[in-house]
Amino acid sequence: MPFMKGAIKKDEYYVVIFGCGRLGSRMANWLSSIGCSVVVVDRNESSFDALSYEFTGFNILGDATELDVLKEAKLDKADVALVLTTDDNTNLMISMSAKEFFEVTRVVARAYDTNNIKMFSDFGIEVICPTLLAVENVKNALYFISGDEK
Amino acid sequence: MPFMKGAIKKDEYYVVIFGCGRLGSRMANWLSSIGCSVVVVDRNESSFDALSYEFTGFNILGDATELDVLKEAKLDKADVALVLTTDDNTNLMISMSAKEFFEVTRVVARAYDTNNIKMFSDFGIEVICPTLLAVENVKNALYFISGDEK
Repeated sequence: MPFMKGAIKKDEYYVVIFGCGRLGSRMANWLSSIGCSVVVVDRNESSFDALSYEFTGFNILGDATELDVLKEAKLDKADVALVLTTDDNTNLMISMSAKEFFEVTRVVARAYDTNNIKMFSDFGIEVICPTLLAVENVKNALYFISGDEK
Repeated sequence: MPFMKGAIKKDEYYVVIFGCGRLGSRMANWLSSIGCSVVVVDRNESSFDALSYEFTGFNILGDATELDVLKEAKLDKADVALVLTTDDNTNLMISMSAKEFFEVTRVVARAYDTNNIKMFSDFGIEVICPTLLAVENVKNALYFISGDEK
């Protein structure tokens, strides 16, 4: 189904999250709390401990670079894929599968290395780069240092 | 000297950066490029490879939890300390030394774990939390999911 702003109610959204670390677990808890259907995939069982008691979604223990795991997560039904593992290459592989093979309309991935941002973008994947966000944030905090710049 | 917005020219600023990883090295390169005096401390020599060819500051190879290393970095003269190692406990220890012992006016630290943010704040340390920034960023990217929320 086409992904249109405001066209679908939030409780009809199906979001698959890859990586249940600090970022993934927080997104899972939040999306679940606002009524989305959420599935979280991680290869470490203990990572699911970060999910809150109120989390109503499902966990899949497995390696998301394997096609069977992506199928088990029903990625073909997903409105959004959040690809948030700690490895950029893994994230790129999952994102490309989600985009090209499962035709997920919105794929948002994390890039650790700022040098990889363009690679994700080139494939139509939206990128979040925590390092770059932190750099911008520290620059803003220190803005007055360069306050005399044009 | 008191740290006043716009009161000191950027080329009179002395900034000590702890941790020359992705974030630390980018800040070092940027601060050096706008004319600040910069010293970068890291315990891994190879991390300094991330400094740009144009970087005009100094590197100190050493463990910043040792007082001698902080003295060698002339932390007592620093206008700003950026505490950006990959370990929250190390960052807290360095930040507290910078604040209490060396009386650095502005100490900005990275917290990896969102649960540690308050601990830093309680000691008057400014905190940057890349995870939290990424969470907010993904939430904003997916805002329309919850567009029907009040």
